Amino acid sequence: MAMVKAPQAFPRTEYLQRLAAVKREMERRDIDALMITSPANITYLSGYTSKSGYVPQGLVISLNEEEPTFFTRRMDAPAAMHQMFIDNSRVIGYAEDLIANPDVDGFDTIIDFLHDKGLSSGGVGLEAKVVSAQTVEKFKARMPTAQVVDFANAVHWIRGVKSDLEIALMREAAANADAGMTRAKEVIRPGVREADAAAEIIAALVRGVDGNPSTDLSGFFLCASPRSSTAHIRWSEDVFRQGSQINLEFGGVRHGYTSALMRTFSIGKPSDRLRRIHEGEVAGLEAALAAVKPGAVCGDVATAFNTTMKRHGLVKESRCGYAIGIDWTEPTASLKEGDRTVLKPNMTFHLMLGNWIDEDFGYVISETFRVTETSAEVFSKLPRIINEI
Amino acid sequence: MAMVKAPQAFPRTEYLQRLAAVKREMERRDIDALMITSPANITYLSGYTSKSGYVPQGLVISLNEEEPTFFTRRMDAPAAMHQMFIDNSRVIGYAEDLIANPDVDGFDTIIDFLHDKGLSSGGVGLEAKVVSAQTVEKFKARMPTAQVVDFANAVHWIRGVKSDLEIALMREAAANADAGMTRAKEVIRPGVREADAAAEIIAALVRGVDGNPSTDLSGFFLCASPRSSTAHIRWSEDVFRQGSQINLEFGGVRHGYTSALMRTFSIGKPSDRLRRIHEGEVAGLEAALAAVKPGAVCGDVATAFNTTMKRHGLVKESRCGYAIGIDWTEPTASLKEGDRTVLKPNMTFHLMLGNWIDEDFGYVISETFRVTETSAEVFSKLPRIINEI
Repeated sequence: MAMVKAPQAFPRTEYLQRLAAVKREMERRDIDALMITSPANITYLSGYTSKSGYVPQGLVISLNEEEPTFFTRRMDAPAAMHQMFIDNSRVIGYAEDLIANPDVDGFDTIIDFLHDKGLSSGGVGLEAKVVSAQTVEKFKARMPTAQVVDFANAVHWIRGVKSDLEIALMREAAANADAGMTRAKEVIRPGVREADAAAEIIAALVRGVDGNPSTDLSGFFLCASPRSSTAHIRWSEDVFRQGSQINLEFGGVRHGYTSALMRTFSIGKPSDRLRRIHEGEVAGLEAALAAVKPGAVCGDVATAFNTTMKRHGLVKESRCGYAIGIDWTEPTASLKEGDRTVLKPNMTFHLMLGNWIDEDFGYVISETFRVTETSAEVFSKLPRIINEI
Repeated sequence: MAMVKAPQAFPRTEYLQRLAAVKREMERRDIDALMITSPANITYLSGYTSKSGYVPQGLVISLNEEEPTFFTRRMDAPAAMHQMFIDNSRVIGYAEDLIANPDVDGFDTIIDFLHDKGLSSGGVGLEAKVVSAQTVEKFKARMPTAQVVDFANAVHWIRGVKSDLEIALMREAAANADAGMTRAKEVIRPGVREADAAAEIIAALVRGVDGNPSTDLSGFFLCASPRSSTAHIRWSEDVFRQGSQINLEFGGVRHGYTSALMRTFSIGKPSDRLRRIHEGEVAGLEAALAAVKPGAVCGDVATAFNTTMKRHGLVKESRCGYAIGIDWTEPTASLKEGDRTVLKPNMTFHLMLGNWIDEDFGYVISETFRVTETSAEVFSKLPRIINEI
């Protein structure tokens, strides 16, 4: 029996529009064939969210074919047929004996395909930020007459402006993140293990709300006293205590699309230090959002935040945020001073105002938003408070 | 206030032994300095499990210093000081303006350090399977007199034989995986959404048992009818139905160490086809385990499985398993025919017998085990059955 297609998150026309944008960029760079290996870019161009990227895989786009061809190990081909919008015949499962084989791997299958299609002597694009040095060497050695062109971050930039359907998924993801944060307020108590709170929050994120479960887990970080200065610890084996501060960061996920959210909790009355930074950061957050409008640049948003923080006697060293979408961070536009990326409607950002001040103190708050025709739409509905337990 | 050290999963002496083994390999390959970028290898050599590897980071080992030096972005330095066994002064947080900077990145800080230490003109090891092509180019351009040597998989091989303390963590992780599978049996019911079952199972994995929570989430895959032929889908938005088959794969995690487990569920009486493959696979599994002893090679275990399967009229295309430890798969020894890796006490494997037969049918079962002085110790305590709901 042939593998059935899963319900598709986007219509075929939307995928073809995305591919058309990629092909225009290929033409501009004089590339006949492009191998996409970034899992998020594969999701964008096909709908595939299965987790097979730990072994060689690649979505090959050529200028003279409407649909791309996907190469993955044989055991993952059925999931690709199920999830991808492309015809099942365009999913090539390479032989399992290429796994853990010191001589050849799945990329050899892709190179064979490019040779067969006559695509190995022109421009061939690779995403050199995510492709290993070993693999680029293999391409150059086996395709000596090809012009190997670095396509790093190019598809990421194309992803920057979202469609209304993508925005709808990010709103759903944000509602799930809100549900997780709401659950956190119920389960963070003195004497509770961090892991037990994490279990409850993650379960709420997965269940989601409004009939829209999260379709994956995103980054999840619970950094509590005496670790409030850490940014990316999952959780510890410790318990919460009276006086503990808890910094939470996580996202809801819908078909790859992530909306991130950070909030700070305090068991008992927040310290003066915590209240002061919270006031400055919320003022900065509001100033940053007020600076969002089409035609402004990313740097303007950061300047609004930093200027407000300075008035409160505060400073944040790390950037104020970044483009967000599939699999969280997009390595493109940053909300930092000097970034000249022009804001356009339906660009989406994580205004990430986590501030890890010194070795014994940090604070977090954030919003995921989109640029509208006039300003910013924040996806979360939660108040910007220190959640006092 | 200086960042306090977290309770350490291993004594300092164990980390120094691990580093000594790496340094012997460096000497053998004529390398003065080595940059480790594989997150699992960083965990192995330092205890660090925080999730900062999405931006440049590296653990630099030099032959003439006892402790390594870790480079990470400034916001992640406190977590490294907290978790790593090394002196806090050896955690270098590079400036946040190197993030999303098109001209320089964190690897430039590491190159500066190698120049300063006089380590940039001898042999310098990089893990070329995990380092991007762009980064290797940067090293070669900025250190033109260095001999850049590929150290891919070398530390992975050193990790192959576990200490008794590592084995103890893997037993704890396995008990957590068992708790997750036990919870699955309680929550998989007709009409239940896959996501709701996933939420409950994941929560059980995180909570763990015996006072040992999982310290991270590992791969989690719930592939149910009509997707039982898929291997790596998280879960879908569908519900279970009478007659559904559900294939589960996940692990418990303790301080990075993962024990993986796969079991198949059937709502209602299993089909004849499912029962037949289950009988053959369990017989093969037992034959494979019976072939485990020090001095045998990995290929012997695969041959025992494949021969038994063949007697049942069955075949499995993918390898029968692989070395497992920190962050799941170790890219070293494979349980496949022809693999001549000699089994030694305290090597650990995931005997992964998932078998995705064709586009409408797959089956999973697995065991994580260690090689003992005489045979195999299986970590899971669960029966090898089709879990009938």
